Amino acid sequence: MRIGEALDAAGFAELAAEGVPYVGMLDVEVVHFREGEVLVRLPYRELLLRPGGTICGPAIMALADIALYGVALSHVGRVPLAVTTDLTVHFLAKPHPGALLGRARTLKAGKRLIIGECEVTAQPDAQPVAHVVGTYSVPPASGVDASAREA
Amino acid sequence: MRIGEALDAAGFAELAAEGVPYVGMLDVEVVHFREGEVLVRLPYRELLLRPGGTICGPAIMALADIALYGVALSHVGRVPLAVTTDLTVHFLAKPHPGALLGRARTLKAGKRLIIGECEVTAQPDAQPVAHVVGTYSVPPASGVDASAREA
Amino acid sequence: MRIGEALDAAGFAELAAEGVPYVGMLDVEVVHFREGEVLVRLPYRELLLRPGGTICGPAIMALADIALYGVALSHVGRVPLAVTTDLTVHFLAKPHPGALLGRARTLKAGKRLIIGECEVTAQPDAQPVAHVVGTYSVPPASGVDASAREA
Amino acid sequence: MRIGEALDAAGFAELAAEGVPYVGMLDVEVVHFREGEVLVRLPYRELLLRPGGTICGPAIMALADIALYGVALSHVGRVPLAVTTDLTVHFLAKPHPGALLGRARTLKAGKRLIIGECEVTAQPDAQPVAHVVGTYSVPPASGVDASAREA
Repeated sequence: MRIGEALDAAGFAELAAEGVPYVGMLDVEVVHFREGEVLVRLPYRELLLRPGGTICGPAIMALADIALYGVALSHVGRVPLAVTTDLTVHFLAKPHPGALLGRARTLKAGKRLIIGECEVTAQPDAQPVAHVVGTYSVPPASGVDASAREA
Repeated sequence: MRIGEALDAAGFAELAAEGVPYVGMLDVEVVHFREGEVLVRLPYRELLLRPGGTICGPAIMALADIALYGVALSHVGRVPLAVTTDLTVHFLAKPHPGALLGRARTLKAGKRLIIGECEVTAQPDAQPVAHVVGTYSVPPASGVDASAREA
Repeated sequence: MRIGEALDAAGFAELAAEGVPYVGMLDVEVVHFREGEVLVRLPYRELLLRPGGTICGPAIMALADIALYGVALSHVGRVPLAVTTDLTVHFLAKPHPGALLGRARTLKAGKRLIIGECEVTAQPDAQPVAHVVGTYSVPPASGVDASAREA
Repeated sequence: MRIGEALDAAGFAELAAEGVPYVGMLDVEVVHFREGEVLVRLPYRELLLRPGGTICGPAIMALADIALYGVALSHVGRVPLAVTTDLTVHFLAKPHPGALLGRARTLKAGKRLIIGECEVTAQPDAQPVAHVVGTYSVPPASGVDASAREA
C-alpha cells in the first residue's frame, strides 16, 4: 500500500525533526526502522526533568508520538500530511533520570487509518514507563492511484 | 477535600513551569484558576510549528496536560506528587499559526483520582483543535488526615 | 455532507436495534435526535445489575456507543457500514439502580471520521456516571459523489 | 500484594458471571487464569451478530472488560469492589461470525491501580479484532493491612 517515497531510519529521523523545533530539540535517535516496527531513543537531558527527578510527561508523549508516526510512515512512505488522530497514554511508572526507549508496532494498517501501540521503557533496566496507543490518518492519494486506494 | 496549601493562578503558573524546563519554555499563561475550572493560554512561537504551518501535536498535548493538572490541583491544593495516570487526546483540526487556549473542567473529583476534560481551541476564532480527557492520581496524605482521606 | 437517507429519532431507534439482538435487548429509547446531538435512555431492568446494586459497565458502554453512533449518523444519514473506530470510557461513579441517559454531541464531523463525546448520567438526579469519547469511520461513498467526498 | 481470597479459573468464571445477568448471558469461558495473564473465550451465538454478519461492538468490549477484570483480580484475589476506571478500545477489524478470544496481561500492578491490555482475536485464524487498555481501581483494604497497602 506504499504511496510515498520509501523511508529508512535516517530518512525518518530527518523527517521527524525537520521543521518541528519543539520536537527536534529532544534529539530523538531512530534506532530501528522497518515496516511495522520502529524503535526510537530519547537521550537524557536536564531539559526533560520534572520535580521528583523524573522525566516530564510531555517528553514521554512526544517520544511515543514520534515512534508511532514512524510506524505509520513505515507502511506508506514519505507522506508528510499523515496526522495523529488520537493518542491514549497510560503512565506506568516514573522513570529515574536517564534515556528512554519507545518501541512501536502496528496493530492495524488500513487504507485510511493506521493504528499502533508503543511501549516506553527506561534504560538501562527496561523499566516500563508508559503504554501508548495511537491512530494516524493517511490522506487519500492524489493522482491515478486514488480510486484504487479507496477500494 | 483540600490536603495541600491553596493555589491561585499565579501560584499554579509558577508550579507548572518550575523545574520542568521542557514545559516551562512553552511560556503558558494561566488565565483563570478556580476550583474545577482552569483556563490556560499557549502563546504563539515559531518553536511550536510543524510542516504545513500548524502547531505540533506535542505542544498541544503539553498544554492540555497543564490545564488538566491545574484542575486536579484546584481541588487538592499544592500536592506536587499528583501525577498523570492516563491522557486521551483526539485531534480535531490543525490550527493556523497562533495562540491556543486550553479550557479544563472537572469530570470527577474523587479521593484518589481526579478526572477532567480539556477543550483546546485556537485564537482568535475559537476553532476546536483537540479534545483531551485525563486522570490524575492524588497520593495518600501523610500525617493526621491520612485515615480520613481513605474513608 | 449527507450521503445516506435522512434519519429521525424513530428511524435511528429502529436501525440501532435491528439485527443486533444483544444490543436490542437493552430497549434503548431515542429521546432526541438532531444533527450533532442525540439523547438516548436506557430503562432500568434487573438484567443490567451487577454486585453492589449498580448498573454493569458493558451496559453503560453499549448505551454510549449507541448515542455516539447516532451522532455520527445524524451527519451522514443511513450508512449502515459506519463503524466504531475507537471508544474511550472513563467511569465516574456507580449509579444506583435506575434509568440512565446518554447525551452525545459532535466534536468533529470530518469527511471520513466523526468524533463525538457522550455524558452518561443517572436519573432522576443527573448524577454523572461515565464520560465517553468515540470515533466513527464513514466509508467512502459509492457512485458519483465519491471523488467529491474525498476532497 | 494479595488482599482477597485467591482465585483460580473456575472461581473467576463464577465471579465474572454471577449477579451480572447481561454479562452472564455471553457464556464467557475462562481458558487460562494465572497472575498477570488471563485468556477468555466468547463462544459464537446469533445473539451477538450485527448487520454485515459480524460480532457487535458491545460484546467485544464486554469480553475485554472481563479479561482485564480477571487480570486485576489475578493480583489481588477476590475483591468484588474492584471497578473499571477507564477503558480504551480500538477496533481493528470486523470478525467473521465465530468465537472470539480475549488475551489480557498486566501493564502495571500498583497498590491502588492495576492497568492491563487485552488483545481480542477471532478464531480460528487469530485475526486481530480489537485492542483494549483498561485501568482497575482496587479499594483500600479494610483491617490490619490497610496502612501497609498505602505505603
